[in-house]
Amino acid sequence: MALAVSPLALPLPELPPIEGVRLATAAAGIRYRGRDDMLLMAFPPGTTVAGMLTRNRCPGAPVDWCRALLPRGRARALVVAAGNANVFTGRAGQEACAATASAAAQALGCHPREVFLASTGVIGEKPPVEKICAAIPGLAAALQPEGWAAAARAIMTTDTFPKAATRTARIGEVEVRVSGIAKGSGMIAPDMATMLCFLATDAKLPAALLQRILKAGVDRSFHCITVDSDTSTSDTVLLFATGATRHPRIGPNPPRALIRDFARAVEEVLTELALMVARDGEGAQKLIRIDVTGAVSARSARRIGLAIANSPLVKTAIAGEDANWGRIVMAVGKSGEPAERDRLSVAVGGIWMAREGELVPGYDEAPVRAHIQGREVTITVDLGLGRGRATVWTCDLTHAYIDINGSYRS
Amino acid sequence: MALAVSPLALPLPELPPIEGVRLATAAAGIRYRGRDDMLLMAFPPGTTVAGMLTRNRCPGAPVDWCRALLPRGRARALVVAAGNANVFTGRAGQEACAATASAAAQALGCHPREVFLASTGVIGEKPPVEKICAAIPGLAAALQPEGWAAAARAIMTTDTFPKAATRTARIGEVEVRVSGIAKGSGMIAPDMATMLCFLATDAKLPAALLQRILKAGVDRSFHCITVDSDTSTSDTVLLFATGATRHPRIGPNPPRALIRDFARAVEEVLTELALMVARDGEGAQKLIRIDVTGAVSARSARRIGLAIANSPLVKTAIAGEDANWGRIVMAVGKSGEPAERDRLSVAVGGIWMAREGELVPGYDEAPVRAHIQGREVTITVDLGLGRGRATVWTCDLTHAYIDINGSYRS
Repeated sequence: MALAVSPLALPLPELPPIEGVRLATAAAGIRYRGRDDMLLMAFPPGTTVAGMLTRNRCPGAPVDWCRALLPRGRARALVVAAGNANVFTGRAGQEACAATASAAAQALGCHPREVFLASTGVIGEKPPVEKICAAIPGLAAALQPEGWAAAARAIMTTDTFPKAATRTARIGEVEVRVSGIAKGSGMIAPDMATMLCFLATDAKLPAALLQRILKAGVDRSFHCITVDSDTSTSDTVLLFATGATRHPRIGPNPPRALIRDFARAVEEVLTELALMVARDGEGAQKLIRIDVTGAVSARSARRIGLAIANSPLVKTAIAGEDANWGRIVMAVGKSGEPAERDRLSVAVGGIWMAREGELVPGYDEAPVRAHIQGREVTITVDLGLGRGRATVWTCDLTHAYIDINGSYRS
Repeated sequence: MALAVSPLALPLPELPPIEGVRLATAAAGIRYRGRDDMLLMAFPPGTTVAGMLTRNRCPGAPVDWCRALLPRGRARALVVAAGNANVFTGRAGQEACAATASAAAQALGCHPREVFLASTGVIGEKPPVEKICAAIPGLAAALQPEGWAAAARAIMTTDTFPKAATRTARIGEVEVRVSGIAKGSGMIAPDMATMLCFLATDAKLPAALLQRILKAGVDRSFHCITVDSDTSTSDTVLLFATGATRHPRIGPNPPRALIRDFARAVEEVLTELALMVARDGEGAQKLIRIDVTGAVSARSARRIGLAIANSPLVKTAIAGEDANWGRIVMAVGKSGEPAERDRLSVAVGGIWMAREGELVPGYDEAPVRAHIQGREVTITVDLGLGRGRATVWTCDLTHAYIDINGSYRS
């Protein structure tokens, strides 16, 4: 089924090369026809890696593979396959991982346990390991520093537009770059969803520090978006640091000032990519931003935001351009987080509809209705209890979501 | 918007009078035109009551009212209004409750704090208290022992068919009866949802015992259904015992054998009503039963069942008649409950598709496809870990759910 491009799509930005990173894509015919469906990224010796993987208890074989490799913190390659998730495939799935890593290691002259893997697509079908392995020598021969845009396209499944972002940062006086690509459209929820996201930087950082920076960034980006509350078995975020650019040396516990700008760049790339995923939520017609303030803690604020963002009744009301704030109140109440009805205030499009448990006297729905008819809808909830705040993003729930998900395999 | 009757609807059973219970309905014009929208039930002196109320943190004023009354365990009347939920209405909502209870108490010659209240409908609009109070004298004058069918109709909102169930039970050698009515269609999730359910019996039981029996029954019925994971601000289940039938006296802690049959009848009435609510899930085309076995505990089994039942991806796959067991695996994994991928088995329609983490060799999808094309779909998940089991019911997620909820207020 060919899907119309999301009306919330953003153009693909220009992505300059990252020193040390080489890329190639190929059409291996895993599931799709007439498009690239494999990505190989190669990194120089000494590249460090950080990663965050799905907490789904039934993860795919590639997730198990990466989880075993991450503690070493070293990477030389990444192989991504789109169309088959290699999930719930038993021993055959594990063997496919080992074979793929061996093929890449042989082609690149590294150890198989330096090869990271990710797959996305249908669950429960054995992956076509011969096709995947057969494509690898050609991919290795085609590696080159350009090609980030092709990479963003090769990892798509139900995505309707490719997703990439890039930033520069200063470490000391030296400029480094962070770029990333992501895919994800449905089965999107914390923790992370059928969502793959790969970042690379030319900075040189110890793996443990890279991990802390990545975790902080993911907590404020991908862990704050939801499309349908469904958490995928394959979610993977990886950040590779080639160390190809010379900047002041960074030890395991550097002064905060030295890495603040780099951490900012990582978080910005992650946030931009996460928002692109929400914009490409299956069937999305509207991007919804939910700001929660006045909660007892930031954690509580995020949970309240996610309860609103995951509520089918809120999401269908917004799809229908109905400023039904009663459903927002319901969703706050069902979150189970501390909330007092008579201190609760709700705004849509910046206009307060309810204040401290009651409809605002003389409330005029017209400007709210105008706001909700736009492509980007903002909901603000103030709990009136404390200083906890969070921002969460989602999209509306439309007929197209049902069309896409009622016939994905047919 | 007139809604087509659910294809899963069941006919309304015959409900004989319950000794001591008198009912009346009326068209008060709260929101709907051309139909009854108020129900008054009256009970004789000495009637005991048990109740379970929503755990939503932003409950409606009638829920607060009932919560304050329940510890006394005594009831003489119930007033239900359909069309306005009296939720998030501040002081005006509280005053509406007090005025309604006073009007009923005056008409019936009882104390206002013996009058239970429930409302359902739109949130955030002040209830038309004058209309409600004006209808009460006429309702009181029309009270009669018949009229359960009219009562089931009067409390409906987006329901497409009225819901009632009845059972008899023996206490000692004496037959007693338990009957109930319910309404609910969307915003249905544990704990309980925009769901009102009222049971009455002619048995005579202390309120504390009645409460224990009700809680056990609700845990195995309404707490095991979900339509959309949204928990309403108004959920109310009340059980009134008139004590009009003479049977062996029951103290606060009777021998289990004496009340076992009565508890069975209560649970059966609750389960029948809960299943009717799932059958009337907004837009439902299929009733889905999920049996979870082999979990580490019953509680864990129920949570896994609800994770499957609430997954939009599972629900849309079934709407599309796609036996996508990979999504079932995903939902098990996202529940956060103990699960081991390689011990997990999944069946649809009683046919095992995956066993211990892998597709069953030679699995033939044809009979599963035939099953999923029917009106009632059964999913079985075996965790292979322990002896915990649970059964959960839901419905599929269809275009009609979005139609109904994108335009409820328009």
